[in-house]
Amino acid sequence: MNNFNLYNPVNLCFGKDEHRQLSSLIPKDAKVLITYGGGSIKQNGVYEKVKGALKNHEVLEFGGIEPNPQYSTLLRALAIIKAEKIDFLLAVGGGSVIDGTKFLASAALFEGEEPWDILAKGIRTTKALPFGTVLTLPATGSEMNSGAVVSRKEIGQKRGMGGPGLFPQFSISDPTVVASIPQRQLANGLVDAFTHVMEQYMTYPTSATLQDRISEGILSTLIEIAPKLMNNPSDYGTAANFMWSCNMALNGLIQKGVPTDWSIHAIGHEITAAYNVDHARTLAIVLPSLYRFKFEQKQAKLAQYGRRVLSLEGTDFDVAHEAIDRTEDFFHSLGIETKLGAYTTDAASFPKHAAAQLESYGATRLGEHKDITPADVITILNATL
Amino acid sequence: MNNFNLYNPVNLCFGKDEHRQLSSLIPKDAKVLITYGGGSIKQNGVYEKVKGALKNHEVLEFGGIEPNPQYSTLLRALAIIKAEKIDFLLAVGGGSVIDGTKFLASAALFEGEEPWDILAKGIRTTKALPFGTVLTLPATGSEMNSGAVVSRKEIGQKRGMGGPGLFPQFSISDPTVVASIPQRQLANGLVDAFTHVMEQYMTYPTSATLQDRISEGILSTLIEIAPKLMNNPSDYGTAANFMWSCNMALNGLIQKGVPTDWSIHAIGHEITAAYNVDHARTLAIVLPSLYRFKFEQKQAKLAQYGRRVLSLEGTDFDVAHEAIDRTEDFFHSLGIETKLGAYTTDAASFPKHAAAQLESYGATRLGEHKDITPADVITILNATL
Repeated sequence: MNNFNLYNPVNLCFGKDEHRQLSSLIPKDAKVLITYGGGSIKQNGVYEKVKGALKNHEVLEFGGIEPNPQYSTLLRALAIIKAEKIDFLLAVGGGSVIDGTKFLASAALFEGEEPWDILAKGIRTTKALPFGTVLTLPATGSEMNSGAVVSRKEIGQKRGMGGPGLFPQFSISDPTVVASIPQRQLANGLVDAFTHVMEQYMTYPTSATLQDRISEGILSTLIEIAPKLMNNPSDYGTAANFMWSCNMALNGLIQKGVPTDWSIHAIGHEITAAYNVDHARTLAIVLPSLYRFKFEQKQAKLAQYGRRVLSLEGTDFDVAHEAIDRTEDFFHSLGIETKLGAYTTDAASFPKHAAAQLESYGATRLGEHKDITPADVITILNATL
Repeated sequence: MNNFNLYNPVNLCFGKDEHRQLSSLIPKDAKVLITYGGGSIKQNGVYEKVKGALKNHEVLEFGGIEPNPQYSTLLRALAIIKAEKIDFLLAVGGGSVIDGTKFLASAALFEGEEPWDILAKGIRTTKALPFGTVLTLPATGSEMNSGAVVSRKEIGQKRGMGGPGLFPQFSISDPTVVASIPQRQLANGLVDAFTHVMEQYMTYPTSATLQDRISEGILSTLIEIAPKLMNNPSDYGTAANFMWSCNMALNGLIQKGVPTDWSIHAIGHEITAAYNVDHARTLAIVLPSLYRFKFEQKQAKLAQYGRRVLSLEGTDFDVAHEAIDRTEDFFHSLGIETKLGAYTTDAASFPKHAAAQLESYGATRLGEHKDITPADVITILNATL
């Protein structure tokens, strides 16, 4: 087991009606900017609940943060934060709104001239404007971690940022919001959380027995609840397991002490940057192809996963192969295509483009062994066309 | 799944040589009191490492905090803290030293006249002297939670305290210390952690699927590593899983959203108060008897545990019964007796005494259903004689 530091000061308020805590969680004298996305919070009742809870606070709003939050949109919010001297941000939305708000919290105190440098130059955020979240779309775990991803379509880039300043002060996670989430987003959330676990688990056997067991527990839970969630997202217990699994998949815990992969995300981000494909779907495209390409290195762990999570039996070789197939079947069962060709007819030149993009920002050695080269990325993506 | 708040701001520094972080974790100008126990830290090298790491800090010491830390001992340390104007406590030891130090951190800022009131009146600690820990004996999870238990032998009591002020600022958990722990303590640690999980898991089925999976993962890990740990505590991977499992068993995570029992602890505390039996051994005495007494209520969850953790097969009834037997066998395999009669020949009147003690501080309704009465406690304990 590798050495690790585990530090996560987020106050997670999980359950029905937890928004009632909002008024005491945000300082009484704070000037609050509520950030949100396309307006679904005005249909599902969350907007009214939040406004009601903050009726004694001074509150401004900024809507329109899109999926894969765009730098240009966020710069408009940043101008408001500075002009209005906002001192608390409240992200009400899913991973994109929360990630965008994390960027804003960091950029508000950034002393450089060009906030994009936070992403382009990998500047860690140690101090940021205080912020909280009200989660409306479980998937990314952003409500309980200190990372964010921001896109800039003008230059075709999607980049990550992080640092201890980016932990929300609190996160309200009320599973009743799940009932109003469209099927497409539920499927995305399941695949996103599932792949988050896989990126931290599907490497090679180590002595980290307990971490493996916890990761396998999240994967088993997601597989168990997936059909129930798609059929009846109003079932509170199912919704709660979904929300909690998405959180646990990327709140930092399961990555402690183990090697991690993350090559699926790195390659997937390029698909989103090029074609605006939903983040989760890019993961579903890359994962099977990458695991087949890296089969030999991942065989032992694939077999462990196949036996413990999928109850498969047989030789390591057979179980590992079947485990990849079954995982792809799982994505299909959620209505998610696993070939890039299903999303665009214009992908022939994309593998080379993606490899060149990754190379341009130094991501030339991906995966837990740091041995996936740009040439390998082309091979992996060619198999998805 | 029940609503919950998850908040745990402890900075856990886990791994070999993590004590090197000490000098930067404690403020440079702090006047530090190192608290420890019977002196094992002077044999196993931990004392020298800690002193070396703090060579530029002003450091005082207080040794002699005993297993089941005694109020009278702690009052002597408290006098030093006040006389010397100590502003940072560093607990170097196991659960008893850490629990004792938590009491000191709370009592140092307590404004009442009698610090025992913190325990006797159940006063929650919201503010305390800042403190950190260097864990030398994995078992109780105290290094990453906000609870503590203190004994007062003059009145035959062992009582708990808690509150958000009792989280350590940091905890150094270096698995290499496990190599020098006596077999008796290793066995105690395994049983302690195992029972901590059981108190939060072995109730009745709920919709908390993920929490169950995580609890089962800790139980499976403890069973898997137990023989390896007893045979070769110097194996780093095994030691790390042991230390990490003990932490995860009681750092607050697995209790979120689920009913909890804790009757085994409540009854076990009385055995320690009366006979000074090691905490873990009191749990091993009470658990099988209590589960047999509460068989009907716990049958469904016992069966789930039997199938998932112990790989048993059969009807719920058969699997549940065998699961209790196997658990008792597990304790025996560690050299731990599960009958009170093995620890004392003077136990005939104890069941009534224990029930009266629990009644005297209002603990008259124990367990996840709050239905274990003093009369039931007598029945449960009579079966252990």
